[in-house]
Amino acid sequence: MMTAGVVRWVPVLHVGSADPSVPMDAVATEEPLQVQVGGKPFAVIMRTPGADRELGIGFLLAERVITSPEDVQDIQRTPGQPNLLDVTVTDAATARLEDIHRTRRQVTTNSSCGLCGRVTIESLQVDAPPISADWVIPSSLIRQLPDTVRRAQAGFEETGGLHAAALFDRDGRLELLAEDVGRHNAVDKVIGQMVLGGRLPLENSILFCSGRTSFEIVQKAFLAGIPLVAAVSAPSSLAVELASEAGITLLGFVRDGRFNVYSHRWRVNVD
Amino acid sequence: MMTAGVVRWVPVLHVGSADPSVPMDAVATEEPLQVQVGGKPFAVIMRTPGADRELGIGFLLAERVITSPEDVQDIQRTPGQPNLLDVTVTDAATARLEDIHRTRRQVTTNSSCGLCGRVTIESLQVDAPPISADWVIPSSLIRQLPDTVRRAQAGFEETGGLHAAALFDRDGRLELLAEDVGRHNAVDKVIGQMVLGGRLPLENSILFCSGRTSFEIVQKAFLAGIPLVAAVSAPSSLAVELASEAGITLLGFVRDGRFNVYSHRWRVNVD
Repeated sequence: MMTAGVVRWVPVLHVGSADPSVPMDAVATEEPLQVQVGGKPFAVIMRTPGADRELGIGFLLAERVITSPEDVQDIQRTPGQPNLLDVTVTDAATARLEDIHRTRRQVTTNSSCGLCGRVTIESLQVDAPPISADWVIPSSLIRQLPDTVRRAQAGFEETGGLHAAALFDRDGRLELLAEDVGRHNAVDKVIGQMVLGGRLPLENSILFCSGRTSFEIVQKAFLAGIPLVAAVSAPSSLAVELASEAGITLLGFVRDGRFNVYSHRWRVNVD
Repeated sequence: MMTAGVVRWVPVLHVGSADPSVPMDAVATEEPLQVQVGGKPFAVIMRTPGADRELGIGFLLAERVITSPEDVQDIQRTPGQPNLLDVTVTDAATARLEDIHRTRRQVTTNSSCGLCGRVTIESLQVDAPPISADWVIPSSLIRQLPDTVRRAQAGFEETGGLHAAALFDRDGRLELLAEDVGRHNAVDKVIGQMVLGGRLPLENSILFCSGRTSFEIVQKAFLAGIPLVAAVSAPSSLAVELASEAGITLLGFVRDGRFNVYSHRWRVNVD
């Protein structure tokens, strides 16, 4: 999904390295994407350029403005404005957006993403049935996921600063990969592409994330119907709680041939 | 700054590990903190409990609701409601808050934190003079920062899931350390404590972060007047650009006795 613009070269002084004479270093590109809905500003997302349409759609799904590809009527880019995305939505989605503005307008932000705008703690609860997909996956397949992602992830090697999110099918085949400076953005990009392809719910998919798992990563998976989330690093306590409640199998520390299962372990066949 | 509540024990299945029989695992606690200003909901922050007052104040500084400790009249906790914080502010700060609601209310969120609510990209520009503190630091001192943080960071060892932010003075003495599931929260906690102590601007401080550096980490440092930001991992392109513009010396990959300097390298004395 990634093309140009993922990395940028900046002047650097290397101190204590093998070769201090290298004058330039690749860093992950971060730029603001202004997302408009029906011509009105909705949010500014700091992101790595690329897959902007998918990011915008995944983000609107996570924000519950859209619930299906049918809600999206048009996605417009403006020539000469690479950091602007305008999404035209149905009347039903517009009504949802107005609801959001009405109930959330006292809130500006939070520091953990994906939850901003929920004014009260009660609004963080699961409000849909748990994911009931009943397939089982061998642990040998899970152990292979990190290598597959690493081979497919172009930007990380260069910058060390890009998170990856990948979707696998339940046979362990890589379907999609996105990279971004933000973990949440990478997840929004892969889910957004599936929304646009009319592929939700993703009941036969595995979501693999390069970083840690917090509440909102699990929440995004839940809204997309993904039964299994695997991450290279640690989950938070609330990620574990939400996964348990949402019917999601949550794996952490998936690396070096090992992993931990924090919820719904019946989906993992330990061979 | 951290006490109880930083970690939580959850049931776990270890697959492929040396000791698969261990039935419980420590994960970093993540819980929502509802921040109210003058009794009205302002934001929900997903955070690791502990230093909540400091987090709330640091967050309000980063959101530009308060600009000094004098803006804070009272910080109230409600018995039995550990996830609620109410901050009473001056009329001047209330006026700023109303401005924010007026200009930002169409925006709900973004996925990178600290910027939510900026409706347009133009509002991301630096709007104050650059930091001009003219001290110089030996590279040997910088190389020691990671070890000092690691020794002081209690939670990470247990969970692998907690970010740390630390403030050092320019002689390399650790002044403050905070841990959180969110990088931004950890930074808000240390800066918030300094706000409450009447210590801003932090023109003789070094901010050390355990993760990557994105735009908003540098922005928070800028608002606190911190001339040098050092991080264990990579910066984003926009972090480098903002640091250059803001007069901040930005270091990345500060580990294993090495580091990179991305901006204002004159503050580093390579011995």
